[in-house]
Amino acid sequence: MTDRSTALFTDRYELTMLEAALRSGTAQRRCVFELFTRRLSGGRRFGVLAGTGRLLDLIRDFRFDDDELRYLQDDKVVDAATLAFLKSYRFRGSVSGYREGELYFPGSPVLTIEGTFAEAVMLETLALSVLNYDSAVATAAARMAIAAGDRPLAEMGSRRTGERSAVAAARAAFIAGFDATSNLEAGRVWGIPTMGTAAHSFTLLHEREQDAFRAQIEALGTGTTLLVDTYDIRTGVDTAIRVAGPGLGGVRLDSGDLPIVAAAVRAQLDGLGATGTKITVTSDLDEYAIATLAAAPVDSYGVGTSLVTGSGTPTAGMVYKLVARQAADGSWVGVAKSSADKASKGGRKTAFRVRDAGTATQELIMVADGFEPAGTAPEDADARALQVPLIDGGDIDASFEGPAGVHAARAHHARVREELPVRALALSRSGPAIPTVFVDVA
Amino acid sequence: MTDRSTALFTDRYELTMLEAALRSGTAQRRCVFELFTRRLSGGRRFGVLAGTGRLLDLIRDFRFDDDELRYLQDDKVVDAATLAFLKSYRFRGSVSGYREGELYFPGSPVLTIEGTFAEAVMLETLALSVLNYDSAVATAAARMAIAAGDRPLAEMGSRRTGERSAVAAARAAFIAGFDATSNLEAGRVWGIPTMGTAAHSFTLLHEREQDAFRAQIEALGTGTTLLVDTYDIRTGVDTAIRVAGPGLGGVRLDSGDLPIVAAAVRAQLDGLGATGTKITVTSDLDEYAIATLAAAPVDSYGVGTSLVTGSGTPTAGMVYKLVARQAADGSWVGVAKSSADKASKGGRKTAFRVRDAGTATQELIMVADGFEPAGTAPEDADARALQVPLIDGGDIDASFEGPAGVHAARAHHARVREELPVRALALSRSGPAIPTVFVDVA
Repeated sequence: MTDRSTALFTDRYELTMLEAALRSGTAQRRCVFELFTRRLSGGRRFGVLAGTGRLLDLIRDFRFDDDELRYLQDDKVVDAATLAFLKSYRFRGSVSGYREGELYFPGSPVLTIEGTFAEAVMLETLALSVLNYDSAVATAAARMAIAAGDRPLAEMGSRRTGERSAVAAARAAFIAGFDATSNLEAGRVWGIPTMGTAAHSFTLLHEREQDAFRAQIEALGTGTTLLVDTYDIRTGVDTAIRVAGPGLGGVRLDSGDLPIVAAAVRAQLDGLGATGTKITVTSDLDEYAIATLAAAPVDSYGVGTSLVTGSGTPTAGMVYKLVARQAADGSWVGVAKSSADKASKGGRKTAFRVRDAGTATQELIMVADGFEPAGTAPEDADARALQVPLIDGGDIDASFEGPAGVHAARAHHARVREELPVRALALSRSGPAIPTVFVDVA
Repeated sequence: MTDRSTALFTDRYELTMLEAALRSGTAQRRCVFELFTRRLSGGRRFGVLAGTGRLLDLIRDFRFDDDELRYLQDDKVVDAATLAFLKSYRFRGSVSGYREGELYFPGSPVLTIEGTFAEAVMLETLALSVLNYDSAVATAAARMAIAAGDRPLAEMGSRRTGERSAVAAARAAFIAGFDATSNLEAGRVWGIPTMGTAAHSFTLLHEREQDAFRAQIEALGTGTTLLVDTYDIRTGVDTAIRVAGPGLGGVRLDSGDLPIVAAAVRAQLDGLGATGTKITVTSDLDEYAIATLAAAPVDSYGVGTSLVTGSGTPTAGMVYKLVARQAADGSWVGVAKSSADKASKGGRKTAFRVRDAGTATQELIMVADGFEPAGTAPEDADARALQVPLIDGGDIDASFEGPAGVHAARAHHARVREELPVRALALSRSGPAIPTVFVDVA
């Protein structure tokens, strides 16, 4: 691994478009791109935006250094004039968007990028990669958090997604309501609490289960959580309390029919006097399994595979579209393709969440024909403006980056989730919880 | 971004187990861990192993530098003795495994890690992250390549997965039979051919479609591929040939009912004398859509979302299990947990692909009780040994790394796919194409 620029996390066609635009004189036309999703995949009732703070970090490192330029030259990806342009490239445009942790619906302009065509077109792949993956995980995480109610949730899916996506997944899950992660890099980089004690291999390393438990307790204290299902669960629980005493912090169950097993283990623990010992379950959970366990005596959940793969919807399906640009005479014009099933709506969007007695009723999107924002929501409505400035003329607002940005996003998500109508909290497949209403402001 | 160690792409419990084992004196026991999948998720008939070469690179960078140690100390993840151990940690054990690009089946020991418990337990998360994601993509890619037959396939899904997983996905798809990628970083790092010309935004940047086509052709020549579905496809094709002439390289269709649209476009192109102009289709393809297009006049496919998300199976479901260890007296013993539905088979495995007249008939796995490999396959069988050494006492075999490793894996995959029985090539859900047979060698 070397200290890398992020500039080649980019589809080749962005650079070939740049080359063609530099030649034809259109590269310097000012443009507005918007990032949004046409629908909520998987019958979701809302989406949760995540990745914005991470994207800002990555845009900071989006530059063409010697390694990148040499590759583009050697592989003849672009011509010499384009290479010269890339050498001094920095994004000097502006970006606004929904706050990280905010809810979104079909058509919500979660990110708006303004700049010359040359500078804005190049961020397409990077912005989509980050927001599509992170939002898919955050959306699944929010559903799991709703299902879990007051019980804590830990993210432990690193092993079931790419090694760096794992860090992003831990971050997205924390924003959407998870309480901790097993991933140490997420702890280091994003300030997320980490958790974890032992795997089955630790028990198997020892001659007897009791030897493993004793070793763990000597190192981590009786407040630790012992994994009791390597062999027979009933024997494992007995051994755990015999070794640790009734003050044992917790036991973890990673297999079996969890509602039944959890009830039996709770009764066994109580019978042994270990009434304060908590039960954590971690076997192949998703939001539906968590809901099924609501009445079982479970104290916390660990979720892996289904979380980091978006629980059946591994990508948020967002797209990055040119919606307005300058014409040859300098005037602004809204633009949109009209491809079958993929038509989009031209013009710059300004978005509001309309509420009635504190409950969201509508995603209101005012559409301007050109560059200028389309003004304000109707004065008689309780409407919350959804977009905030993120990058101004190339200057990144650092308050959205790093651990502070993550914790602010988590707090924002908790607040805005309270606005959701009750029907949005159901887990079944359905349409968006509130309608998206476009209003043209000519 | 800073120049990073990979040591914290790790679940916290690996370090807490290390701490407990260092205290109890079991950390130096020699161990054998195996990485395998219990089943082929998604009704797949075979799996394709990918990620091995990438994993070797990452193991090379698995070290605890000041940043990592400071975090582990500040967050009180482990005690001082464990920090001291980690400071000088390097993996000095040995690793063997299936060649990258090889097929696998339930129970196939695709990676075997030998070393002390302390050094081997820490690679669990990293090894699983890499092989689970990359193999899920490679397995989907192989099915698409089978469906595409002789028509070339391009990977263009970077925007639908995490920005670094995107690079891994391009690499895995290439190994499993794709011909090119849109991802420039995959081109730079892994030597994979890149492709791509223009998006709809390039057409929308210009006043008229013909202006955009002319600009693209001036930059990239008439051999380029024009995207003709921004507005009306029929008009787009007419404009394309009018601007480029009948020698136009290709047109790309990214929307609509592709079998019907492709046939209409082919007839239109032929009518305009552009009989050599190729048709590329790229709209929401997966292996089933590709199969549906077999009779349509399509020349090549571009695949995005479904490929990088494993076409419904976004993780390969592999696990990392302790299968043998030294006892207190130095003797070796096979170990396995017996958890409900997750029981595994102890003892070190040696794997062979048994063939009959060149066609695979069986995954034969010889199981030893302890450390020593379990010998050879029956002499009367045509059996190909599947495991090769990858790391020997900490020394990584560099021939599996970098672009050379990727190209060797691609060639190996093409060879071994020829061994599959015909029933393995069907796309429908079913069981493994060949049975896995375990033979205990006591």
